[in-house]
Amino acid sequence: MAGGYDTDIVTRLETNLDDLSPEITGAVMEKLLAAGALDVWFTPIQMKKSRPAVQLSVLCEEARAESLADIIFTETSAFGLRMEKIARLKLERRFETVTTKFGDISVKLGLKQGRIIQTAPEFASCLSASERTGQPLRAIYAAALAAYAAQP
Amino acid sequence: MAGGYDTDIVTRLETNLDDLSPEITGAVMEKLLAAGALDVWFTPIQMKKSRPAVQLSVLCEEARAESLADIIFTETSAFGLRMEKIARLKLERRFETVTTKFGDISVKLGLKQGRIIQTAPEFASCLSASERTGQPLRAIYAAALAAYAAQP
Amino acid sequence: MAGGYDTDIVTRLETNLDDLSPEITGAVMEKLLAAGALDVWFTPIQMKKSRPAVQLSVLCEEARAESLADIIFTETSAFGLRMEKIARLKLERRFETVTTKFGDISVKLGLKQGRIIQTAPEFASCLSASERTGQPLRAIYAAALAAYAAQP
Amino acid sequence: MAGGYDTDIVTRLETNLDDLSPEITGAVMEKLLAAGALDVWFTPIQMKKSRPAVQLSVLCEEARAESLADIIFTETSAFGLRMEKIARLKLERRFETVTTKFGDISVKLGLKQGRIIQTAPEFASCLSASERTGQPLRAIYAAALAAYAAQP
Amino acid sequence: MAGGYDTDIVTRLETNLDDLSPEITGAVMEKLLAAGALDVWFTPIQMKKSRPAVQLSVLCEEARAESLADIIFTETSAFGLRMEKIARLKLERRFETVTTKFGDISVKLGLKQGRIIQTAPEFASCLSASERTGQPLRAIYAAALAAYAAQP
Amino acid sequence: MAGGYDTDIVTRLETNLDDLSPEITGAVMEKLLAAGALDVWFTPIQMKKSRPAVQLSVLCEEARAESLADIIFTETSAFGLRMEKIARLKLERRFETVTTKFGDISVKLGLKQGRIIQTAPEFASCLSASERTGQPLRAIYAAALAAYAAQP
Repeated sequence: MAGGYDTDIVTRLETNLDDLSPEITGAVMEKLLAAGALDVWFTPIQMKKSRPAVQLSVLCEEARAESLADIIFTETSAFGLRMEKIARLKLERRFETVTTKFGDISVKLGLKQGRIIQTAPEFASCLSASERTGQPLRAIYAAALAAYAAQP
Repeated sequence: MAGGYDTDIVTRLETNLDDLSPEITGAVMEKLLAAGALDVWFTPIQMKKSRPAVQLSVLCEEARAESLADIIFTETSAFGLRMEKIARLKLERRFETVTTKFGDISVKLGLKQGRIIQTAPEFASCLSASERTGQPLRAIYAAALAAYAAQP
Repeated sequence: MAGGYDTDIVTRLETNLDDLSPEITGAVMEKLLAAGALDVWFTPIQMKKSRPAVQLSVLCEEARAESLADIIFTETSAFGLRMEKIARLKLERRFETVTTKFGDISVKLGLKQGRIIQTAPEFASCLSASERTGQPLRAIYAAALAAYAAQP
Repeated sequence: MAGGYDTDIVTRLETNLDDLSPEITGAVMEKLLAAGALDVWFTPIQMKKSRPAVQLSVLCEEARAESLADIIFTETSAFGLRMEKIARLKLERRFETVTTKFGDISVKLGLKQGRIIQTAPEFASCLSASERTGQPLRAIYAAALAAYAAQP
Repeated sequence: MAGGYDTDIVTRLETNLDDLSPEITGAVMEKLLAAGALDVWFTPIQMKKSRPAVQLSVLCEEARAESLADIIFTETSAFGLRMEKIARLKLERRFETVTTKFGDISVKLGLKQGRIIQTAPEFASCLSASERTGQPLRAIYAAALAAYAAQP
Repeated sequence: MAGGYDTDIVTRLETNLDDLSPEITGAVMEKLLAAGALDVWFTPIQMKKSRPAVQLSVLCEEARAESLADIIFTETSAFGLRMEKIARLKLERRFETVTTKFGDISVKLGLKQGRIIQTAPEFASCLSASERTGQPLRAIYAAALAAYAAQP
């Protein structure tokens, strides 16, 4: 199935961590993102012997899987790692800049077959406007959405 | 501390459910809300003997605590219930209606000492506009925020 | 491996939502179920930049995957979607009606090679008996199980 | 508010653990229960610096709070501990034995002002019947509920 | 991709449980581990109709998948089960014994191409030292790591 | 109860967020910590209408409660906030420096009535040693614990 969407194949690495301090688990997220992971996330899980553990999930391009696996084995307590190839459907991405009273904000657009079906103010752009103006992040988001909607 | 906020005292009821089917737990939420609870929520917890259990929390006015406790004892597997009085700080609430291309939408405003510091399109109002027009709920929210922002 | 079970192949769609209001996420569940999803569920996850996010998972027949993907891309903030084909083992299902003092209740039976290995009072049937009689859902379930067990 | 319920005051101890291995966290649950805690549970939480951490909660009689605090400080990585007194509403408990084809099973009854409003087969009693007969725990529970319901 | 790691293929069984008491869910974990599962874990999920449910995940060798599926269908409320084959990367394992003031402790080493990249005191070995000496598990772990680090 | 522990009274602020994007929720954590909160954490909760929501919890000195409440009301979607005073038991803290092959590391000691019952390598100190040497954080922690244990 493609259905008008862009597609690709990515690799998902997963492991269950039941003997690693959360301090260290948290620091590993940064290392994996810095090394090129597309996404990294933690899921709370419950393992044997009443252990409140964590599942680490990493999404990456296949070419990066080996170097990211090396990081996981070196930096965490994992002795094993699950590896799956997964198809993805994706919107085409385009960026536009809108002008608000808080300054220019970048807006990410998602397109299916040339039609815009997603509009999302860029987090980094909103955050810097928030820091520059001292206004709440929520106000920046709302202004960016309003500015985009008001375009001809 | 009040600091310019409205305040009141509410009661929080809590119990840990480790022997109730989630089907029934889910249905209890509706009953408690229908009986006047201010808020009801579930927190996933891990109890003894590897039980993936649920903490049920209910926030209510003190005058309702007894009848809501009756519902919990009758409808769930609880043999005990924790009960605490808790102070709340609150924004003053006011409602306004904005006009969008999807129709009129109600917007909830939160005020501190007469100054508006919160703006939230009303879920029920957005949902009915979404159902009426067939447009995504997100588009309705964005339009309501934009319409509110565009007011003189 | 079949091992005496019915089998089929289903599609699982998944995406991580880190920029969608829970109000909207909740409403999407209904839309996906109404559009024919076999199952929809949320998993709390923790993403980068301290975001308390949600993984949306949808199980569906392959023929529905495209129309459900369209709903996800239109109604949520997803720019990408993971798609996997997964084998399922299933019990054969059969329904029976038992008579209780709360009225007739439907019971769902699960069979492996003709032998009943699962017995579950139907939620909808129990709920309507509970609403009709004003009795707790748990009492209805217990009565249905007892009535089924008492059959010759 | 008592409303016909038994009441008492218990102590809740809580601490957030962000630098303890889940292996050790799991083992602490046993120690706290063995030392007289009324209940012990874990809640998955997300702390600063992307740490997937755990809140440890202990419910105990006030007289036990100090010795349980000693265990937490000795066995976990906690440098601080929150301590609250909480009122509880409780059902009166009574036990009965019912006879099933799997043997005798203990059933826990919960009473409000002498009226039975809760019926729960005892886990330990069901587990030992399950181990003795090789039958699923669910079947034992259903049989116990059915036997209780069939009483004159 | 192997990248110097041992690899194998395992089977993951998964099902969403929304009508099983956590007491019974907890007991199933033991049964699955006793029947040879490599790993068993629970993930809190949120299903339709406000149900705070649980995803049961089992990792096993393919040859065990059928007998473990039988246990899940018999002991839980599942009417269906997802089954996937998943590649794993693994470190080579080796065990060493270190001498501490709390007695001898077994340490698990993880090797990639003959090089040690993981060092983990064995939980069972540390627990028995803790029970034997009355010292905190954390102190035993630290002593084992220190003894291993002090080796020539 | 003090039992030889230091004690103080802190304020806990809590609110349930069911209409805020996780992107914004994540950014609020930083703001609250920067404004002097003692601790900030998120708990995944399930609210009405199938909303996968988040409970925000803030621990602070009473004198800071008002300014932190202002941040929450300004930066999040909260219209109300629960506020409780909670007693804390605390270990006395002391810091020591140990010398390892990765450089000097700060170790935090927790004392009860002058006796050391907690030993924890400082995260920031370990992280900077890890960045300086390129060695895994886990190795730094182990070395710091070993160096502390080897002291006369």
